[in-house]
Amino acid sequence: MLVECVPNFSEGRDLATIAALQAAAAVPGVRLLDTHSDPDHHRTVLTLVGPPDPLAEAAFATVRVAAERIDLRRHRGVHPRIGAADVVPFVPLGDTPMAVCVALAERVGERIGRELGLPVYLYGEAARRPERRALPHIRRGEYEGLAATIGRDPDRAPDFGPAALGPAGAVAVGARRPLVAFNILLGTEDLAVARAVARAVRASSGGLPAVQAIGVPVSRPGVVQVSLNLLDPQQTDPLAVVRAVAAAAARHGVAIVESELVGLAPVAALLPAAAAALHLPRLQPRQVLEVAWALAAAEHDGAH
Amino acid sequence: MLVECVPNFSEGRDLATIAALQAAAAVPGVRLLDTHSDPDHHRTVLTLVGPPDPLAEAAFATVRVAAERIDLRRHRGVHPRIGAADVVPFVPLGDTPMAVCVALAERVGERIGRELGLPVYLYGEAARRPERRALPHIRRGEYEGLAATIGRDPDRAPDFGPAALGPAGAVAVGARRPLVAFNILLGTEDLAVARAVARAVRASSGGLPAVQAIGVPVSRPGVVQVSLNLLDPQQTDPLAVVRAVAAAAARHGVAIVESELVGLAPVAALLPAAAAALHLPRLQPRQVLEVAWALAAAEHDGAH
Repeated sequence: MLVECVPNFSEGRDLATIAALQAAAAVPGVRLLDTHSDPDHHRTVLTLVGPPDPLAEAAFATVRVAAERIDLRRHRGVHPRIGAADVVPFVPLGDTPMAVCVALAERVGERIGRELGLPVYLYGEAARRPERRALPHIRRGEYEGLAATIGRDPDRAPDFGPAALGPAGAVAVGARRPLVAFNILLGTEDLAVARAVARAVRASSGGLPAVQAIGVPVSRPGVVQVSLNLLDPQQTDPLAVVRAVAAAAARHGVAIVESELVGLAPVAALLPAAAAALHLPRLQPRQVLEVAWALAAAEHDGAH
Repeated sequence: MLVECVPNFSEGRDLATIAALQAAAAVPGVRLLDTHSDPDHHRTVLTLVGPPDPLAEAAFATVRVAAERIDLRRHRGVHPRIGAADVVPFVPLGDTPMAVCVALAERVGERIGRELGLPVYLYGEAARRPERRALPHIRRGEYEGLAATIGRDPDRAPDFGPAALGPAGAVAVGARRPLVAFNILLGTEDLAVARAVARAVRASSGGLPAVQAIGVPVSRPGVVQVSLNLLDPQQTDPLAVVRAVAAAAARHGVAIVESELVGLAPVAALLPAAAAALHLPRLQPRQVLEVAWALAAAEHDGAH
């Protein structure tokens, strides 16, 4: 039974801290599949896969290292954040039940609150309050806004840990389906265009279903970024998002320069783009040799 | 150590024979990843994966069933063929050496000649004559042409088995790198257009490197087919082929209707198309979750 954990940390520049986070994840049975560090977002995303128990251990160990080494009072990045270990999602792979990931979020969240003394908010499928299902609600006002309200506003009372914020901030721990994190660079320096395009495509303002988007500045000259989460890539895949962003940007006379994946994407999220370019309407994940092999191996393991 | 075997049989219509071929492949340790039957080509392609010894057994067993059940004297399909089991390639996966596949081709080929009494031609990396590296040379004149010359022309002397052709024909057994078999339907009933487009894109007439192509009729109304093998999809990927076919067809005022994969394709062959559609110039196989996991598992196994 396999689970993915994709913790996001508020450090995208200091190689020593990034290496310390990777080292903390090195629990036997857990595999580090990807490290994505972004200096503009000032953020690092690890992709870990393993069975529930060692994965819980690895996730907790990385949060401990982040809390020891990252000081939110001096952190400035373009991505919203509330903590050193900002968000720790558990994601079911294969036919692992979501309930396993909800239980992992509760167990790791409780331990973070108790042993590290950090406020923890349960989100996604693990949320105990409906408004906490979505991260933007938990992150409103970011670290600074949370610091000003956490002890006084009952809406900001954590699910675990103290109602008080130190330099390591708070942690959102949750369970969710696989998502695709995807950034698109637009060929303009006008941040207002990125923000308008983000508003045009995100679900919360009437755009594409299951899409979160923000417009942010980046250090690369001549471009701005639309940073997206595709929460249900089966419903709205990257190709649909790229087409919608291209159309919204074109209304401002702006074109897409390039895109980047943050972390990994499930093959099913990428195939629609390949299928469209190749005129392959019936392209299936099982037609990808490595995927067919992985599925056959998983079925074989499951039969024993 | 894993090997893929992708035998092609001259039966794409009779479900009982197709099921018998699948059943013959059911050797413990071997996984049947895909079955692709095409009634116009009158051909079925199985994709088998396993360790060398059980895979050799499965490949031989399918050839035996094909030889028992398929009569080439009554076979009419649009794809060139010389035998009931027309071609049996062994393909190295991961870091399996090509030499393992050459040895498999020799061993299975020798057994087919000896136990089944069929003429066998070694091809690809297993070829013993340079002109036999390429299948079109071995298949020239097809079954009928081979039947007329095999006992008299020394150029057609088999590597194993008798220099005589029965109803089951001959078998090309070989070793090769992974290829992509890919059919493109053009929106015209004019077979001359499909043939001209095939000539324009295939390597043998000055087109794209490592591409084989023929123009063939199909039963679906209003379309003709360009049937392609991409022998080195790293060098010429499906997107490059689709673009070249679209350009060549456009010169005749014809457009692509749709495409189909025959069997499976390695992820690296499909990513360029996804990358182009998504503006992702640096998309790598390791960014596909299932592939990253399969690679990590393979490395883990290799380390023990």
